[in-house]
Amino acid sequence: MPLQRLIRQCHIILASTAKYTGTNFLRVMSQGKMDENLVSVTEAKRFVRDCFQAAKVREENAQAMADLLIEADYRGHFSHGMNRLEMYINDLDMKTTDGNAEPKILNETPATAWIDGQHGLGVVVGNFCMDLAIKKAKTVGVGWTCAKGSNHYGIASWYTLRAMQQGLIGISMTNTSPLMSPTRSKEAALGTNPLSLAAPGNHGDSFVLDMATTAVAVGKIEMQRRKNEPIPKGWAQDPSGKPTTDASLAFDTGCLMPLGGEELTSGYKGYGLGVLVEVMCGIMSGSNYASNIRKWTHAGAEEIANLGQCFIAVDPNCFAPGFSDRLTDLNDLLRGLPSSDPDKPVLVAGDPEKTHMAKVEKSGGINYHVNQVKTCMSLAERLKITPLQFIK
Amino acid sequence: MPLQRLIRQCHIILASTAKYTGTNFLRVMSQGKMDENLVSVTEAKRFVRDCFQAAKVREENAQAMADLLIEADYRGHFSHGMNRLEMYINDLDMKTTDGNAEPKILNETPATAWIDGQHGLGVVVGNFCMDLAIKKAKTVGVGWTCAKGSNHYGIASWYTLRAMQQGLIGISMTNTSPLMSPTRSKEAALGTNPLSLAAPGNHGDSFVLDMATTAVAVGKIEMQRRKNEPIPKGWAQDPSGKPTTDASLAFDTGCLMPLGGEELTSGYKGYGLGVLVEVMCGIMSGSNYASNIRKWTHAGAEEIANLGQCFIAVDPNCFAPGFSDRLTDLNDLLRGLPSSDPDKPVLVAGDPEKTHMAKVEKSGGINYHVNQVKTCMSLAERLKITPLQFIK
Repeated sequence: MPLQRLIRQCHIILASTAKYTGTNFLRVMSQGKMDENLVSVTEAKRFVRDCFQAAKVREENAQAMADLLIEADYRGHFSHGMNRLEMYINDLDMKTTDGNAEPKILNETPATAWIDGQHGLGVVVGNFCMDLAIKKAKTVGVGWTCAKGSNHYGIASWYTLRAMQQGLIGISMTNTSPLMSPTRSKEAALGTNPLSLAAPGNHGDSFVLDMATTAVAVGKIEMQRRKNEPIPKGWAQDPSGKPTTDASLAFDTGCLMPLGGEELTSGYKGYGLGVLVEVMCGIMSGSNYASNIRKWTHAGAEEIANLGQCFIAVDPNCFAPGFSDRLTDLNDLLRGLPSSDPDKPVLVAGDPEKTHMAKVEKSGGINYHVNQVKTCMSLAERLKITPLQFIK
Repeated sequence: MPLQRLIRQCHIILASTAKYTGTNFLRVMSQGKMDENLVSVTEAKRFVRDCFQAAKVREENAQAMADLLIEADYRGHFSHGMNRLEMYINDLDMKTTDGNAEPKILNETPATAWIDGQHGLGVVVGNFCMDLAIKKAKTVGVGWTCAKGSNHYGIASWYTLRAMQQGLIGISMTNTSPLMSPTRSKEAALGTNPLSLAAPGNHGDSFVLDMATTAVAVGKIEMQRRKNEPIPKGWAQDPSGKPTTDASLAFDTGCLMPLGGEELTSGYKGYGLGVLVEVMCGIMSGSNYASNIRKWTHAGAEEIANLGQCFIAVDPNCFAPGFSDRLTDLNDLLRGLPSSDPDKPVLVAGDPEKTHMAKVEKSGGINYHVNQVKTCMSLAERLKITPLQFIK
């Protein structure tokens, strides 16, 4: 049932593009006073940790989930933070995720490792894989690890930032449940298949790309539908495979278009990038791939996800000295370009997140949408833990 | 002078998207009988080799250029083949390319190497770098090499195919002269910055992605201009930085939009990918980068190009056994999707090239456009070599 499936998806997936434009889905939907649901980062992490511990996940792993999800909210990627908490808990309840599984190395060379995530939490698999890649990069210049048997791993940039914090370049990708129609296809066959690259500049400057290979995510379409407004051509298809501007039809069809939109505007490149991610993840690791991956569900899946993920760390010191100087110079060059709208300066990937983090620091906490707060209240009741506490 | 610069560019750059749609620029422009300028692959290579040898390039390097350029034409990427021959010869004449330079390793670890191309021919630098990456991948699982001091290296897939032919996954990227406007910018600051990934399947099947990170290339805009037809929104900007549908204005402005087009349709993702390529190439290698790279010229540049390039080889055998089986299965799954137009089946990256190569094999040669033939005649005269010979 595409409609029911999509309604569930919309609880989970929000527009990745909102990161950049600043029109965050949850914030746009927010009612009433902006700061009424302000939660400190420490308290938000406490709450998430308690939820996972109540779901019989050991403390170390529960803390890892808390750090991952609240980092997403802190960076302004609300779609991938607390918003997904219930889904993870449901997957643990359904036993399709094993909260205490240990990743296992199946094969290893000086620069590579193949890992079985053993259906553990995505962040446990991901941290293990990226840390191993970092270790290898520090030894031989590059570390390249691939995991099968993984689960949703949150924001891809969580892992690439981990490498960047060690002075390395981090790259990560994951396959996801089918939602994107390859160019010319009437059906979805690939996921939003995100990729991230993080690279360090000077004095805290950086380049942090974290993007889905689809044009937009379902949340953006739902927003237009609620407003009774059309969607731009190139976001989604109708059941015959043609681009549609009808938000309701797009929502019911559930076929996102790849980055680039139609064939005429080079959507096949976005499709190609989606396959690139699948090759590096599912095909390389031997996990599920493409339309063999289970459908999205918020209620707790009956099937295991068995996602494939890729983690790469590269030491820029192996190449030309002065990497961070040049990165900072490139960022300055780009940010200094003349803008077509004086109110909208040219940005570098990662700049909108920096703005959001500064806002959280200034206000003292993360502002959650009222619906998110309600979900947290139900979860606290269900798991018998201390409810989320607010600053004011 | 943007117009003059663009006219020169248009001799060089053709729509990369044409690869996929099959509407190749030169062939569309062709007049008269389709097969009247048929040249065997062997003869085309002989001609290119002779040109370079006449320009004082030693035989081995001249042969490498011939193999590179004619492979592009064989695959149907006419923009990057014989079409660029004169430009390379002009750069040699102007001494901004050293046809006999030897690439030099500046730093090396088991998985990486930093190379100085010493302003040699792009293919000489590229072959050296990819072969070194392949060697390293066979030893430690991954080889990652970066070159500064390079020149135009032809089709990016030349290098990734080289890795694929050894059973490896190949990845390559290069920075290029500024031609793309970052999202919100009125000015171009990045090149078309292409990337390629090639991965082997079974029985000659493969996934070969080779794409610019811009929506389209200038050649596509010139085609619409000649036909007095508008261009789709999302291809190019006007001088104020807004998207334009006026082909002439777009042509004169010379600001291509990144893959994804406008900000609303996620053009900032294509912009982010363009920066990703620049980080992996110019920033990593210490070459020129972004708008510091010289402008395009067909006449022979007075400045050195000093391009940065990246070459990666990964051994899939380090990960899950059966990589090529799964790749073939994925390709079959994608090709078998229901198409929205029965005359346009769903393709996999590399399929249009396979169709073109089969056509060349069937007809016995590559069919060159009459203008290309004229350029070759002039070159033969200028360099005092045997003119290009035709099959019939």
